[in-house]
Amino acid sequence: MISIVILGTGNVAKHLFDAFMTQNGIEIIQLYGRTQNALSYFNNQVNTTTDLSKIKTADIYLVAISDDAISEVSKFLVGKKGLIVHTSGSIPMSALPHKHRRGVFYPLQTFSANRKVNFKEIPICIEVENEEDNELLNELASAISDNVIQIDNDQRKALHLAAVFANNFTNHMYHTAQEICLQNDVSFELLFPLIKETASKIQDLSPLDAQTGPARRSDTGTLEKHLTQLKNKKHKKIYTLLSESIRKTYGKKL
Amino acid sequence: MISIVILGTGNVAKHLFDAFMTQNGIEIIQLYGRTQNALSYFNNQVNTTTDLSKIKTADIYLVAISDDAISEVSKFLVGKKGLIVHTSGSIPMSALPHKHRRGVFYPLQTFSANRKVNFKEIPICIEVENEEDNELLNELASAISDNVIQIDNDQRKALHLAAVFANNFTNHMYHTAQEICLQNDVSFELLFPLIKETASKIQDLSPLDAQTGPARRSDTGTLEKHLTQLKNKKHKKIYTLLSESIRKTYGKKL
Repeated sequence: MISIVILGTGNVAKHLFDAFMTQNGIEIIQLYGRTQNALSYFNNQVNTTTDLSKIKTADIYLVAISDDAISEVSKFLVGKKGLIVHTSGSIPMSALPHKHRRGVFYPLQTFSANRKVNFKEIPICIEVENEEDNELLNELASAISDNVIQIDNDQRKALHLAAVFANNFTNHMYHTAQEICLQNDVSFELLFPLIKETASKIQDLSPLDAQTGPARRSDTGTLEKHLTQLKNKKHKKIYTLLSESIRKTYGKKL
Repeated sequence: MISIVILGTGNVAKHLFDAFMTQNGIEIIQLYGRTQNALSYFNNQVNTTTDLSKIKTADIYLVAISDDAISEVSKFLVGKKGLIVHTSGSIPMSALPHKHRRGVFYPLQTFSANRKVNFKEIPICIEVENEEDNELLNELASAISDNVIQIDNDQRKALHLAAVFANNFTNHMYHTAQEICLQNDVSFELLFPLIKETASKIQDLSPLDAQTGPARRSDTGTLEKHLTQLKNKKHKKIYTLLSESIRKTYGKKL
């Protein structure tokens, strides 16, 4: 049995909480949040506190809070014997208290308030300072995921950056597509099957080979027509830069 | 029974051919391709020809060829009584022969050589010049898809443009993410669950509300760190422009 304290009440904390609650080998002995209001979801399920000086003793402290607060909040864990880990992709392990057992537990997924995720397939990227903590953190991660990997700080930072392209920027492309649909009185939902297929395809075909469209074909006629069609300056800029980037990728200049 | 002749041997033609072949109410009476080689997939299944002067008489001629060739190839259908339609999202119906029954049959999906698609959910956008052809083209489309809609030329052009963002540019984001992974010795496959969830999420949550990440939060610290991390100039440019665009979307300037 691994005992854990979760610090945080946001989407990551909530999803991890739900996932661990269903595991027999893991006991969440406490959950910390800044306000009683933030704790409402957890109150009836587990011991909670808003007081950082009242954190219980546990095998692992899971600091699942915003990047900016990790360093400050984890100072309150100074003196604890357990393993202290944060869940951030972009913050180094060294942000946690020195001379303590520490590590990182980074689930590579986007978490939203009202969407269930299948933790079994979510990669959990772990890192520990002391080799002897590896087994413990691996056991915790393996309880909820079939995809646990050990990566170092540089690799995790790279993954986090790659995720900005694969998730944040991709979502912004969806948003732009929706704006174009709205401006032209067509339903954005018509694009759902295309969006789904685009995301699925790359599991069989590398994105380099999967690329299609006017920029890939260097079809300057269509590229020019599209630029004329776009009324929004922001859309034009994105269209121009990404088309140029695609053409450069395939060895042709605009 | 609707009889059709398909002109074209590319991915769209092949996928439509496969879909229609399984329908009892549709008879493909001929398939045209430019070379015998291109026809090899079809030869044993249907009458084929490489000679545009030998096109048989049919209810519908489906011109599923590259945009640039639609006008030229469809000239060979002058004098035919049937309905002539092309499958392009960006070419107007008027590219087909004048004084003929004509229309557009645009399946909104990305088609790859070795991937099966579920036609039932693919939107097929139809347009006809003469109202009386509407029923016929609708019957053809409904034979393979549960999602047939009538849209005009401007709407179709807008959808095609929106699809460039939702498919072509999104795929380029995947490619860039893969490059970053390769450069940092982490597996691109670790991003697959994230990519899948990003694409699924927008069916419940509009992309405007689904947006996350440092640009959305105006987290300048992370934005700067990411720009330092990126070694490739092309990646830097994309990162800067899209982060700026996201921040403008949410009312904050870089």
